[in-house]
Amino acid sequence: MPKSPIADPQEDYPRWYQDVIQRAGLAENGPVRGTMIIRPYGFAIWERIQADLDRRIKEAGAQNVYFPLFIPESYLQREAEHVEGFSPELAVVTHAGGKDLTEPVVVRPTSETVFGEQMAKWVNSYRDLPLLLNQWANVVRWEMRPRLFLRTSEFLWQEGHTVHASAADAAAYALRIHLDVYRDFLVDTLALPVLLGRKTAEERFAGAINTMTCEGITRDRKALQLATSHELGQNFARAFDITYTAESGEVETAWTTSWGASTRLVGGLIMGHGDAGGLRLPPRIAPTQVAIVVVRDEDGAVDKALEVADAIGATGARVEVDADVHTGFGRRAVDWELKGVPVRIDLGPRDLAAGEATVIRRDTGEKRQVALTAVPGVAAGLLDTIQTEMLAEATAFRDAATTDVASVEDALEAGREGVGRIEWARLGAEGEKKLLADGVSVRCIQRPDGTVPASEDEPDLLAVVARAY
Amino acid sequence: MPKSPIADPQEDYPRWYQDVIQRAGLAENGPVRGTMIIRPYGFAIWERIQADLDRRIKEAGAQNVYFPLFIPESYLQREAEHVEGFSPELAVVTHAGGKDLTEPVVVRPTSETVFGEQMAKWVNSYRDLPLLLNQWANVVRWEMRPRLFLRTSEFLWQEGHTVHASAADAAAYALRIHLDVYRDFLVDTLALPVLLGRKTAEERFAGAINTMTCEGITRDRKALQLATSHELGQNFARAFDITYTAESGEVETAWTTSWGASTRLVGGLIMGHGDAGGLRLPPRIAPTQVAIVVVRDEDGAVDKALEVADAIGATGARVEVDADVHTGFGRRAVDWELKGVPVRIDLGPRDLAAGEATVIRRDTGEKRQVALTAVPGVAAGLLDTIQTEMLAEATAFRDAATTDVASVEDALEAGREGVGRIEWARLGAEGEKKLLADGVSVRCIQRPDGTVPASEDEPDLLAVVARAY
Repeated sequence: MPKSPIADPQEDYPRWYQDVIQRAGLAENGPVRGTMIIRPYGFAIWERIQADLDRRIKEAGAQNVYFPLFIPESYLQREAEHVEGFSPELAVVTHAGGKDLTEPVVVRPTSETVFGEQMAKWVNSYRDLPLLLNQWANVVRWEMRPRLFLRTSEFLWQEGHTVHASAADAAAYALRIHLDVYRDFLVDTLALPVLLGRKTAEERFAGAINTMTCEGITRDRKALQLATSHELGQNFARAFDITYTAESGEVETAWTTSWGASTRLVGGLIMGHGDAGGLRLPPRIAPTQVAIVVVRDEDGAVDKALEVADAIGATGARVEVDADVHTGFGRRAVDWELKGVPVRIDLGPRDLAAGEATVIRRDTGEKRQVALTAVPGVAAGLLDTIQTEMLAEATAFRDAATTDVASVEDALEAGREGVGRIEWARLGAEGEKKLLADGVSVRCIQRPDGTVPASEDEPDLLAVVARAY
Repeated sequence: MPKSPIADPQEDYPRWYQDVIQRAGLAENGPVRGTMIIRPYGFAIWERIQADLDRRIKEAGAQNVYFPLFIPESYLQREAEHVEGFSPELAVVTHAGGKDLTEPVVVRPTSETVFGEQMAKWVNSYRDLPLLLNQWANVVRWEMRPRLFLRTSEFLWQEGHTVHASAADAAAYALRIHLDVYRDFLVDTLALPVLLGRKTAEERFAGAINTMTCEGITRDRKALQLATSHELGQNFARAFDITYTAESGEVETAWTTSWGASTRLVGGLIMGHGDAGGLRLPPRIAPTQVAIVVVRDEDGAVDKALEVADAIGATGARVEVDADVHTGFGRRAVDWELKGVPVRIDLGPRDLAAGEATVIRRDTGEKRQVALTAVPGVAAGLLDTIQTEMLAEATAFRDAATTDVASVEDALEAGREGVGRIEWARLGAEGEKKLLADGVSVRCIQRPDGTVPASEDEPDLLAVVARAY
């Protein structure tokens, strides 16, 4: 086995993360500080994420639109908390078309304000509600400590913006997106066992009355916020005058929501499943699910590989043949491992002589000899098994990293080492501040059964505390 | 019939164009001058355009990537013609993250330079070639005279960037994209009979040695550039040092191409097919192909409509039921016409009593009574017929708008009224300047059979001249 081309995650997790991104060909730094170049393999993963989320968003009734990159500076100032939250991160265009601009424009850090202005024009009557919109776009938040996929000055995301006639309808829709779109995608497609809950006032989105979050747990036992869904109350509706004529004839102020998930999901995937060998991709998101590796170009091995690939492709799996025999087999095997392809099928001279192939699971490393005729069925079955078992294994990891505690001191200790759970009533905003001073934050507040509470005041709520990316 | 909600295209074509965009719910102006808000119906059309082009681009072997929005100002200056071409249109970020930037960054007007810099790192050996990349992105070119979809300060597009070992390979690939991706998409999916050819030196992309174009003809007899494919020679390869070690061991400078198509395609669709009733969408691109309109909610009409919709959906068509009976039938009929839905099926009380439906073609206005049981088959057949006949009709329109002429004076006259064709040897760069002074440009140079010449020096080439958007 050649020496591992990546750092040992037990020894240097940040270095391991960088190495995986580089060696698996996912992304690189762009020339302007904090920007990212997403390479073909990284983008293929993002395209699959996008397609899956987009289907779920459309099933939830939202329609896609596209709003401009540039927002008049004055728009951001209309909602007080919003401008305060985003000002330090804004990129500002002051010069365009050969002239200084009379009003500078900001590059959108998020689009609540420009949607707000426009939705006010589109909503007149209760018949126009709910108005359910979504866009896929790039946004810019200037980053002082950028990290590929996790925090970049420009990132790709979807942002949903909706208008509702009542607080209850807005709350129900934000929750629906949170569960049916984000949670189901994260759990069922990415095999990430997320923690669900409400953010504390301290951690809420700038301008929201409630932020719900899906928190992933990385293999170095930190929390990673993967998707959020916000109830904006009437804050933006008042700032942008989004009103409607109710059935009664009265003019009412509307209620709005927004919700987003970004290229950070790729970071979540790397850190949620990766191991010492590199990426491990759950089959549903893997651009290539099965790699057939021709060890040597002898005895018709390449033809046999293409034949097996056809048969596997016919089961619906995404399969690729590696016949690059000029590169050593060991190096190629390491590369497929790095890229996290769920199933590898080696066709070596001894395999072929015996009418067999060696089938290797990326998630467990388990190898077995399989008769060539049985390979397609075995591969298809393994893809289902791996999807299920990766979720189970990640869930077990998360549970093992979680400690239930009863005091603020123990919560700090638990949150430094992994995930701590403590009664929210016992921690409170004061305890939260103490933890924060030591780099541990409340990731979410949830019910004892792990579901999302309707308010912070429900009895028996738990605070989930951890260090976070 | 209610009064038409849009201007008469014969009387005021620009007004008609604006009215269609507004009344069909395609787009609106954004708050920053020159920017555009793409509404759900307009975006659904763009999503279909994107999916179709993306499939063709992948079939041509290119892989998707994502490069940053922000480019260091210095990058643009490395290719002399390129910076000269784009400088007047640049938007510049001078302030970010609460500070003035030491080096201002430009918002990408196109990404040749940043791809060039990176591709130089990725290409080492002849084994790395060809390198075939594409990205879907927003770009910014500050517009003094913006027009929705045609010229906006920000637009959405795809831009391909490729590196090749030889001039011949680069030329062949640029041509392949031009024909197999752009021409086939425009003709087969959008039913637009485009003119193909090379741009003159005057009209070429800034930094290219050859630009190939697909030119559409609008219904007011102007040309509209819909997609271009550029051979960049070694201009960018030299500026960014894209070299490779050849099989011989020599270090060689590479050859690059780039190619793009944008949201302008939506403008081309509107102007290439629209009529006094509004949009006319070819079935292959229409988000909704068949609209079933319930005239009155009586005698189980809604249930019947849903039943017919299911049967039509089972043929693979995209179908929508309009049961909004609180809005008058006449207004709804006008709206479906405005939106250009290819087939409308009216279910009125008399139709239902007779066990029939009224089937209306949007392209010709032709109506006929069809037995309800036969409706799904008729609708499916009509979608094929309409696709074919819209292309034939648009081709006949274009041909009727085209005049072959023999003198520069006649070319000017023909180009003012529609499309003129004149021998390129007779017109020449000098004639081209004369026409330009009167607002008529050479749209492309083509062979007498309409194919793309390999050089400007081939014998018998024709110049196609017209006013242009």
